Amino acid sequence: MAEPQPPAATTDGEPPKEPSKNALKKAQKEKEKAEKKAAAKARELAERTKQQAAAAEDISKDAYGELPLIGSKDFKPTGAQRSDLSDIASLEDKEIVFRCWVENARPQGAKLAFLNLRQGLNTVQAVVAASETLSKHMVKFAQNVSTESTLVVTGTVKRVQEPIKSATIKDFEIHVSKLFVEAKAHVLPLQVEDAERPLPTEGAAEEIKEGEGRPLVGLNTRLNHRTIDLRAKINHAIFVIKSGVCTLFQEFLGQRGFVLIQTPKILGAASEGGANVFEVKYFDKKAFLAQSPQLAKQMCIASRFQRVMEIGPVFRAENSNTARHLTEFTGLDLEMEFQENYHEVMGLLEDLMLFIFKELNSRYKKETDLVRSVYHVEDFKLPESGKVPRIPFTEGIKMLREAGEDLNDYDDLTTPQEKHLGRLVLEKYGSDFYTLDQFPLAIRPAYTMPSPHDPKLSNSYDMFMRGQEILSGAQRIHDADLLAKQMRAHDPPIDPDGPGMKDYVDCFRYGCPPHAGGGFGLERIVQFWLGLPNIRMTSLFPRDPQRVAP
Amino acid sequence: MAEPQPPAATTDGEPPKEPSKNALKKAQKEKEKAEKKAAAKARELAERTKQQAAAAEDISKDAYGELPLIGSKDFKPTGAQRSDLSDIASLEDKEIVFRCWVENARPQGAKLAFLNLRQGLNTVQAVVAASETLSKHMVKFAQNVSTESTLVVTGTVKRVQEPIKSATIKDFEIHVSKLFVEAKAHVLPLQVEDAERPLPTEGAAEEIKEGEGRPLVGLNTRLNHRTIDLRAKINHAIFVIKSGVCTLFQEFLGQRGFVLIQTPKILGAASEGGANVFEVKYFDKKAFLAQSPQLAKQMCIASRFQRVMEIGPVFRAENSNTARHLTEFTGLDLEMEFQENYHEVMGLLEDLMLFIFKELNSRYKKETDLVRSVYHVEDFKLPESGKVPRIPFTEGIKMLREAGEDLNDYDDLTTPQEKHLGRLVLEKYGSDFYTLDQFPLAIRPAYTMPSPHDPKLSNSYDMFMRGQEILSGAQRIHDADLLAKQMRAHDPPIDPDGPGMKDYVDCFRYGCPPHAGGGFGLERIVQFWLGLPNIRMTSLFPRDPQRVAP
Repeated sequence: MAEPQPPAATTDGEPPKEPSKNALKKAQKEKEKAEKKAAAKARELAERTKQQAAAAEDISKDAYGELPLIGSKDFKPTGAQRSDLSDIASLEDKEIVFRCWVENARPQGAKLAFLNLRQGLNTVQAVVAASETLSKHMVKFAQNVSTESTLVVTGTVKRVQEPIKSATIKDFEIHVSKLFVEAKAHVLPLQVEDAERPLPTEGAAEEIKEGEGRPLVGLNTRLNHRTIDLRAKINHAIFVIKSGVCTLFQEFLGQRGFVLIQTPKILGAASEGGANVFEVKYFDKKAFLAQSPQLAKQMCIASRFQRVMEIGPVFRAENSNTARHLTEFTGLDLEMEFQENYHEVMGLLEDLMLFIFKELNSRYKKETDLVRSVYHVEDFKLPESGKVPRIPFTEGIKMLREAGEDLNDYDDLTTPQEKHLGRLVLEKYGSDFYTLDQFPLAIRPAYTMPSPHDPKLSNSYDMFMRGQEILSGAQRIHDADLLAKQMRAHDPPIDPDGPGMKDYVDCFRYGCPPHAGGGFGLERIVQFWLGLPNIRMTSLFPRDPQRVAP
Repeated sequence: MAEPQPPAATTDGEPPKEPSKNALKKAQKEKEKAEKKAAAKARELAERTKQQAAAAEDISKDAYGELPLIGSKDFKPTGAQRSDLSDIASLEDKEIVFRCWVENARPQGAKLAFLNLRQGLNTVQAVVAASETLSKHMVKFAQNVSTESTLVVTGTVKRVQEPIKSATIKDFEIHVSKLFVEAKAHVLPLQVEDAERPLPTEGAAEEIKEGEGRPLVGLNTRLNHRTIDLRAKINHAIFVIKSGVCTLFQEFLGQRGFVLIQTPKILGAASEGGANVFEVKYFDKKAFLAQSPQLAKQMCIASRFQRVMEIGPVFRAENSNTARHLTEFTGLDLEMEFQENYHEVMGLLEDLMLFIFKELNSRYKKETDLVRSVYHVEDFKLPESGKVPRIPFTEGIKMLREAGEDLNDYDDLTTPQEKHLGRLVLEKYGSDFYTLDQFPLAIRPAYTMPSPHDPKLSNSYDMFMRGQEILSGAQRIHDADLLAKQMRAHDPPIDPDGPGMKDYVDCFRYGCPPHAGGGFGLERIVQFWLGLPNIRMTSLFPRDPQRVAP
């Protein structure tokens, strides 16, 4: 086993480059060309010798360079502690080693290089200054290091007098003593700097913002180069928040006895009506992708799992090319028994969302502020009373009519009407979050429990953020005969004995308790929390009717 | 809005049944039949009147019966606190209300009924005894309540002298004062009692266990009636543990800075070789289901997410009909930067699993013991030193050869050889969990980093529980040129410029740090932790080449 290897320039398996190899082969055929190449080679050799001589005199020659590809040659780590720049305030005047990447490198004469280095959401200014112990060769190397290369840097943390504008770390900079390139970046097809800036307004592919020379880059270009785009701090913040919403969802529900389940995504039958479903070639049969875990999670309740939750992909073959539709998104689903009234479940859903909002505001404040500052989005307003507005559907219709909308008692709302109602609710209740309860039965799925108050209504609800739907839920029918009847009466009718349906309907013949639940769209929660213009920004590698790559 | 409604027999929206309606219609056509029906109706009316008279004398008539379908008529809950039987010790001599379901009901003369009632993993004995305040009518009703019906019971918690054998709660029973059926169960196609008992040994569809009259029910029958099967306590315990493994996975990694991600399951190209992949009809194009989040999670690392994890479905179109293969299972995936050596990542993976085992033994001991008692499985052994055995592949080969197996240095292990090695490791190191490191390069995916020590080996590893693989992982190649070269040299060759591959390969041109990771099969962890004979038992609704329903 080899010696422990410090981060220094050695070779590690890569064959030495021999630029004349091809030339020699060709030379056998074309003498003239060969002579030219030989001369070039001679010049190159001379240049190399000269450089090597210079390097021999380079006092910093072991303090910079390109590291070989880390192939884990040395199984004993050097033990060098790598620092996290988040801890920089506690490291003043200490020499630290850290991995980072290059935001940019700026020369200042022959003796000075300034670099902006990034690690996670932090950026720090680093100074490489020629001195008795640091050569101009090293300064030149630092000046020319390519943007987005990964580095291992050794340097001392120094407090600065004037706050540094160009970095997120304002009060400290790094005085570099060693600088190695671990992975060199080639020329980028998209600048990360551009990915940090907002999207152009809807419709425009590119837009030049007033007072700035650079055009705003359109979403398609960004998504085509998504792995560069995702490097932007704003995008890191979005996905840290998305991860946070999942954590908070599970934390809140886990404490209340919910069991995390995984239901199948491949179904033997297109059970939920058959429209908008992706077909799968399943060996020699046809199968389908689940449009929601609806039937399976209810079957778990019938199987006596009293409270279940799921976080999983949901597939919709809708040819919708809007700013809030994806063909594959993440469902945050839950289903639970209730004792007497489905409002028990609505109350839990409201408490869940209030918990998520509160914790996003404390645990993920930095990320939230970062994203909202780019899009100049207002804070997300919640009612001071702590009571989520719970508005009967008929009352919502009334509010809209009074505000000039033309619609009937049992009409479904259009997206513009939903947004309008959101503004009205915000005005009246001071809340960007609210519940609409008792939807018309005809516009809900067949398994929805009819309302005991009005047979044209149902025990169902939607939840909204900034006037847009994030959850759809209801009390479900837990009696097999009533369910079968409602399925036959549905428009279009569903055969309760049909494939994929019989198992579902039958499971309610064996004493299933009353239950309700709902499904959130994770990406929508993130989009509307942050006020982002497009849902694609909240999906790592978004899928829509036009896009299945990268 | 109606009055708050106590759990009592009232009507709730359901139209009253009028059995003679059809008869009257037909009567207009067929007089004779109408007369018969009218006579029947008269008899029925007389019977009903008689019953009503009896009911009028029934002192308990408001204390039992079938509740109407809960349609959430009353929006104000009664406020009756429902008790959790887990808290029974603190409720001695108190009157409680609780929801439960019927394991069985046993008459004892005309004045006494014993019921076994279940709630979650608890069962309790309930006594309905005729007295001055409780009628024989009510006792008879309780004696005849159907197995698996859901009840709301009111009763007093009483300590018993002799421990009760037939219930999990040994020291208390319930003296019932009210008993309502909330949801009545029809005749069951599978007895839950049978689902509590072990599977017959492999190959047998049914088996009669020595000394017992009842045959053991085969897996297929159970899966065909999965919603009944799942009601068994053993199955509840399995899925509580499965949920627990996810929670522990996220808890451990979340504390170490891992971001939970969701990568697309629909891919535009069959990127990982093209074999064993399900094809999807994606609008007018072909798409494919992801066989793992491998490429996407690496692309996240290239996008500077330093540590990512994912819990999501994984799809394999393998025609494998074994006890440890599913076509859809849950992947617990992670990927992370490392500083100097991929053993940093292996160490984290080992610590993760030790954490999971430790916490399963404490937080999920009850569930673990319940399942293992049915299958008489031994405890899961971990090394006393706390150090997970980390065995080089070549060393594993040597151990197997010394134990009589015939195989070459760079051969892949068969399943029986893996199990054999597991037994050898258990003997030598006292551990049911171990890591095999430095696998032959030829049997690993093209993106695997070759070993710097032996070009025929690689920086890759598998982890095993009870001699069976639960994780496959490796250091990945983070240099685009080396990656493209290895892909071309792979058997079968992969085109690095091909569809779905170019975006992946290119993302390593922009300064990607060294990284490694792995993917666990969640169902396998649960299966081998509990020592279950078949992986299908760890999937709510398992998918295999023959089964896509329920």
